[in-house]
Amino acid sequence: MGNLKYEEAFHLVKEELKQALAGSPPIINQYLLGLTRSQGKMLRASAVLICSEDESGLVEPAAVSAAAAIEIIHLASLIHDDVIDDADIRRGQDTIQKKYGRRTAVICGDFLLSLAFTLISKIPDPGQYQEISFPDYIRRLCLGELLQHVNNYNSDLSVLEYIRIISGKTAALFEASFFAGSVLCGCSTRERTIYKKIGKYAGLIFQLQDDCLDFNETMEVAKKPVQSDYEQGVMTLPLIFALGMRPQYKEKAAAGMLTRKEINNIVKETDGVSFNIQMMTKYSTKAIKELNRLDLNENKKNQILEFLHLMTGGYLEAGAIQ
Amino acid sequence: MGNLKYEEAFHLVKEELKQALAGSPPIINQYLLGLTRSQGKMLRASAVLICSEDESGLVEPAAVSAAAAIEIIHLASLIHDDVIDDADIRRGQDTIQKKYGRRTAVICGDFLLSLAFTLISKIPDPGQYQEISFPDYIRRLCLGELLQHVNNYNSDLSVLEYIRIISGKTAALFEASFFAGSVLCGCSTRERTIYKKIGKYAGLIFQLQDDCLDFNETMEVAKKPVQSDYEQGVMTLPLIFALGMRPQYKEKAAAGMLTRKEINNIVKETDGVSFNIQMMTKYSTKAIKELNRLDLNENKKNQILEFLHLMTGGYLEAGAIQ
Repeated sequence: MGNLKYEEAFHLVKEELKQALAGSPPIINQYLLGLTRSQGKMLRASAVLICSEDESGLVEPAAVSAAAAIEIIHLASLIHDDVIDDADIRRGQDTIQKKYGRRTAVICGDFLLSLAFTLISKIPDPGQYQEISFPDYIRRLCLGELLQHVNNYNSDLSVLEYIRIISGKTAALFEASFFAGSVLCGCSTRERTIYKKIGKYAGLIFQLQDDCLDFNETMEVAKKPVQSDYEQGVMTLPLIFALGMRPQYKEKAAAGMLTRKEINNIVKETDGVSFNIQMMTKYSTKAIKELNRLDLNENKKNQILEFLHLMTGGYLEAGAIQ
Repeated sequence: MGNLKYEEAFHLVKEELKQALAGSPPIINQYLLGLTRSQGKMLRASAVLICSEDESGLVEPAAVSAAAAIEIIHLASLIHDDVIDDADIRRGQDTIQKKYGRRTAVICGDFLLSLAFTLISKIPDPGQYQEISFPDYIRRLCLGELLQHVNNYNSDLSVLEYIRIISGKTAALFEASFFAGSVLCGCSTRERTIYKKIGKYAGLIFQLQDDCLDFNETMEVAKKPVQSDYEQGVMTLPLIFALGMRPQYKEKAAAGMLTRKEINNIVKETDGVSFNIQMMTKYSTKAIKELNRLDLNENKKNQILEFLHLMTGGYLEAGAIQ
């Protein structure tokens, strides 16, 4: 089974990414390499590697391609997001569409999606390749994004509907990462289902902490304009919760007329951020319950716990996750 | 091997398309079904089915999914093309982005690409799935589009460079269709290479006849605004040839300042359309030479000849292809 140490495998993912992107269209490959360098943590890749570890803690080599593929899918989705939002800046540098035009950005996203599918098809066992079924997850990602779009400025959006949106938009790729890792690790069907659930909860937690950033951080820390979500019509959970408590603001919210100050005030008054943290705690508890159903050695279990803690962005104490 | 008559298989492709698109996001599935209905000939699907036929002329069932997948990829590329070109009309109906906005159009294209990969992964033999390597072809399609973009208003574009562009942009999907058919038919490596070449030539011929339409047809026949290519910066072969003969117009062409009347005049004077027809003849001859290297029964051979003739859009006499 596995024969790579985690650090070694993580390094190989970076190398595989570099190599794959070096073969991308000349006008964009410098740009893409830049994006990858700023992509420090590679959370999704990391999840694939951890979950694929065998009993001695060694990573299955095929997980390297799967991890690189998932990072490239993530990159493609960022580039297409920027086209959609007409964004000029991403991670401190000009977006691809600002630099090279919308045509290049649309095609480049498509190119990266295909590249990801090529990489994942390198997995030696074609049966495993089919089982991992990446395209299904990308479809769910797209469906989540569309569902979010349909609910732009919907001030009646329920908590449940919001969770449905982010289950696709954000959690689908984390679920895919955990699932791919478990398939490559040779897990049973029962175990794979558990990994999938943990991945989904991890993705939900990640999105919920991202929602909090919008209300807590300065622009420098968040690395994007703070409170940009509502201006794009996106209703995040702290605001959804606040509007539930202060329904008199719903009409104004639906008309896109709430000012930042008003949003800040009602989220603060109703303690919308604490509600998000409660939800994060709920999903952490669920994730850990699932984790305990797996028969893992301490080492792998701790790595997954650490990963979950990373997802919370420090909003939950390390002790809260165990 | 095969157990479906061609007509039966073609009908099943339509059904599979309908079924796959019915599962697409609610806001767009009516629209997509409309596009498919107007997609009468389904040339790429047809090529997959024909090439997959066994010695008794029966189609391999797995070819149905592959054919539907290729049509969906084609659909996705049209939708993203419309985003890029800011197009309002496609095949007589409003484009998806005109009707539902750019966000929906970008995501919908991504959704369809993933859907196509899911369909093709339904092929029962996972090894064949890997061999067909669809993602490689989509990458080549993207590279062709980028190469075209880089050469917008390049009045020095050579014939060879133009062929390189359309080898990706248009011919890659036809090549993929022929190749997929040959893999599913159980052809040897040598035979597959020949099918691939015929597919590529078919795609080149198809693009070359499309270039001619811009100079020969009224808007009603072409179903798109005539001579729209140059206005988008796209240099097609009749104009490239004409500029080679009348270099005094190159500077004006590069500045995007040629009027339709001037383009029409120089293409007419230099007989640029005849040059395109010569090139089509050249690629037909090459395709038929390859076809004769395959050991096919009369029935399959005639179907491929008929397909090649269809590609010429009537610019070459049926007799010229045999």
